[in-house]
Amino acid sequence: MELSLVLDTNGSATLQAQVFEQVRTMILEGRLKPGKGLPPSRLLAERAQVSRNTVVLAYDRLVDEGYIESRGTAGMFVSLVLPDDLMSIGGRADGDRQNGVAKNGEADLLGFDGLPVGVMYPSHARPKYDFWLGRPDANGYPVRAWRRILVRKLAASGFSLTEYGEPAGLEELRVAIADHLGPARGMAVDHKQVIVTSGSQDGLNLICRLCNVTHRPIYIENPCYQGAAYLFKSLGHKLNPIPVDDHGLIVDNLPRDQGGIVYVTPSHQYPTGVTLSLERRMKLLKWAEETSSVIIEDDYDSDFRYDGPPLTSLAGLDRGHRVLYVGTFSKSLGAGLRLGYVVVPKCVSDAARNAKSQMNNGQPWLDQAVLAEFIETGAFDRHLRRMRLIYKSRRDHLRTCLEKTFGGADLKGESGGLHVAWRPPEGSPPAHEIQQRAYKKGVGIYALNSGGAHDFDGTASDDVLVLGYSSLKESDIEKAVKRLHQAVVGPAPDQCKKVS
Amino acid sequence: MELSLVLDTNGSATLQAQVFEQVRTMILEGRLKPGKGLPPSRLLAERAQVSRNTVVLAYDRLVDEGYIESRGTAGMFVSLVLPDDLMSIGGRADGDRQNGVAKNGEADLLGFDGLPVGVMYPSHARPKYDFWLGRPDANGYPVRAWRRILVRKLAASGFSLTEYGEPAGLEELRVAIADHLGPARGMAVDHKQVIVTSGSQDGLNLICRLCNVTHRPIYIENPCYQGAAYLFKSLGHKLNPIPVDDHGLIVDNLPRDQGGIVYVTPSHQYPTGVTLSLERRMKLLKWAEETSSVIIEDDYDSDFRYDGPPLTSLAGLDRGHRVLYVGTFSKSLGAGLRLGYVVVPKCVSDAARNAKSQMNNGQPWLDQAVLAEFIETGAFDRHLRRMRLIYKSRRDHLRTCLEKTFGGADLKGESGGLHVAWRPPEGSPPAHEIQQRAYKKGVGIYALNSGGAHDFDGTASDDVLVLGYSSLKESDIEKAVKRLHQAVVGPAPDQCKKVS
Repeated sequence: MELSLVLDTNGSATLQAQVFEQVRTMILEGRLKPGKGLPPSRLLAERAQVSRNTVVLAYDRLVDEGYIESRGTAGMFVSLVLPDDLMSIGGRADGDRQNGVAKNGEADLLGFDGLPVGVMYPSHARPKYDFWLGRPDANGYPVRAWRRILVRKLAASGFSLTEYGEPAGLEELRVAIADHLGPARGMAVDHKQVIVTSGSQDGLNLICRLCNVTHRPIYIENPCYQGAAYLFKSLGHKLNPIPVDDHGLIVDNLPRDQGGIVYVTPSHQYPTGVTLSLERRMKLLKWAEETSSVIIEDDYDSDFRYDGPPLTSLAGLDRGHRVLYVGTFSKSLGAGLRLGYVVVPKCVSDAARNAKSQMNNGQPWLDQAVLAEFIETGAFDRHLRRMRLIYKSRRDHLRTCLEKTFGGADLKGESGGLHVAWRPPEGSPPAHEIQQRAYKKGVGIYALNSGGAHDFDGTASDDVLVLGYSSLKESDIEKAVKRLHQAVVGPAPDQCKKVS
Repeated sequence: MELSLVLDTNGSATLQAQVFEQVRTMILEGRLKPGKGLPPSRLLAERAQVSRNTVVLAYDRLVDEGYIESRGTAGMFVSLVLPDDLMSIGGRADGDRQNGVAKNGEADLLGFDGLPVGVMYPSHARPKYDFWLGRPDANGYPVRAWRRILVRKLAASGFSLTEYGEPAGLEELRVAIADHLGPARGMAVDHKQVIVTSGSQDGLNLICRLCNVTHRPIYIENPCYQGAAYLFKSLGHKLNPIPVDDHGLIVDNLPRDQGGIVYVTPSHQYPTGVTLSLERRMKLLKWAEETSSVIIEDDYDSDFRYDGPPLTSLAGLDRGHRVLYVGTFSKSLGAGLRLGYVVVPKCVSDAARNAKSQMNNGQPWLDQAVLAEFIETGAFDRHLRRMRLIYKSRRDHLRTCLEKTFGGADLKGESGGLHVAWRPPEGSPPAHEIQQRAYKKGVGIYALNSGGAHDFDGTASDDVLVLGYSSLKESDIEKAVKRLHQAVVGPAPDQCKKVS
């Protein structure tokens, strides 16, 4: 087959890197379809007038990263399942997509600038046992209670289905959320400060509109949540990554002299799972006041806390109207519901309402009405208590299996949320390699620069992987960890039966 | 009462205009509450050191525009119902809100820039008989069919409620919409070109992300749909208004030499109701090709056509991938559903999908699943046929009542949609005054610079009003027109009984 590369011998990138990038781009843009054969390295080397070794090394890296696979003497073929399907970010996640579109004349005419997909979606290529992060248990959804309320609300819909509703959200729901946040997150909130959104992503967009993000420096955790990083990028930002350690964002690394907007996930850092210490929370708030900065607190999975009480949210500690709080029902109920909220300082609640009406004029009435009653009647709290028990026992079982199978388990972020960060034993392969090997065995487990996470300049350590355990039955966790062990070091001892 | 004005004697604005603006702003910002008394003109004139006549004239204008009302010897009072409540855009619609927020220290710290509310929402101040535009009949919503499908889909939800769905929308729904657009709008569309949105506003935002709006000139109909104008404004645009005549947008007024983005409502111009002629459609498409421009076609109410077949949409005529089509179910079903769609050229369908995931990651699964089946099974087409008959007979009755009551009715935009434009008889008061008088009689009828419409630089003719008839029973239309007649010229003859 033909495969035309354009190599720049004076370019900053090595020839090998250029071959790798261009082939990868063709694959991601679908110009090279899965299963398609690649030209033998010798042939391609001749055509591109580079040493054969350059092509061989580029091919090796493409194999390592799962884009192509060797079928022995038959040669190289585009992988049937691309790592980017698996991670659901694809070329879209980095520059490739832009290049792809930039090459597209018609797209150019539209003046389009490529935007990355920042948030995971179900993939046809999902592995059998997928520890993808932040997936609630499908069987846990309160379908019966939901239907009961749904049918009643629908029967009494009146004008609600045909008229525009309040863009900031249904008042009952805003009140219910405000009441929930008091005990749950230590926030004293008036319902007017609550804006109902279609989830965290909609909430982040709302905040970007409110805070003039395009004109202020943005500081973001490193590694961080992809959906946020890609959104800020898409709005034309240079992001300033601030490293995260075992106590969360290293607040001292924020510039003393210049304020801006800080994006943090204090309850359960995404992806590392660590909790921002109280001392740092106070420091961060102080810094925000001194530098007239805004803090975006993304509290995506704080509904689930297993050991000890949760730390009060930054918004709950905030006295200077500095914190914009982002909450979602995507983890506590389900992402298919598309409901979340932001809590803003009183002084901008009108502005937030107006921004929401500019964006999409609010969420569907029926969904809001049902959720409002579900929360008011206490059914939501009962649901959370039930799910906490299920998720806690899944977390415990994952730990037990890892300990038994690997003779110990170095875990972080266990005390809450829906995922943990795991450091494999000394001498294991690098995280990204474990991810690839495990995937080939049908197990989804993610290095810090994937799994819905983003790593700036590859600074995230490559010896940690994240596992979301909430959607896997204990028997599956057991099988998955065995396969994982095979992927890492060979067959596992059959000894991680559940201790109960 | 105190009322402190800061007048600039060297300012470009007349002192009278300054008094008017400052009092109006205080009212809109709630610093002067409805029912509150105003200082006598003499007193205010002394304090502000201007001639009494200046204040009297400013007060007169405030009365004319409905902000304050005279209670004879008791003096002037802030109106109990402000025109901005009535029009649901308030100070938010123009600069006032910005000023308001700019004055707010805390908001400043957030770096917030005030955003206007661009889209109508239900107002506590809605008049008894409200001809507000684009309101479907609440009793027409297919609640029973909806519930039947809803319950079945919910029972079979599987992972759909807990997992993220395809950001571009549920495939069944995209296919159903694509199939609907063929016969309905003459569009041959692949479902991949259809992106499900939460309504037109979400669709317009999506298109703004796709088309780099902030870097390209925007041409917009004058008068035009508020939701679009305010969105473009909020993204920092200078808008270039292009006048509309009886054949729609005057395409010849677009600059020959410079392209950009054109926003049009060709089927039923908002608010004037006129249809863009076929000749102009072809001209507009040609212009777009020659100037590498993009056309945004907002086809908000084209599902309803009463006399003759609808003209093929611009998207249906487009051969140059120039048209981005915006559709909504807010008129055909209801705005509370929050579902709409955009149709984009193939070359940017991936980009559109990515933009959507950046914005809010798609619409709720259940709502989409129900609508998909509702369309697939033909229930949607049956619903449309049923509503067309209802709306047509309301339109006919409105015309009959206007003719009988005013001895003739000069109407535009009758052939389709949910509203008409009415030119009152010779010698009637200006439209904005009729709007105010009618409102005081409990009738909502709207001048071209209100009712969800926007008029640039007050160029829209003040002798036309728009009436949305779709949500009013015929008996109410009858009563409303009588009151309207009283508002315009005194008591009406009782002779507009329905002729059937």
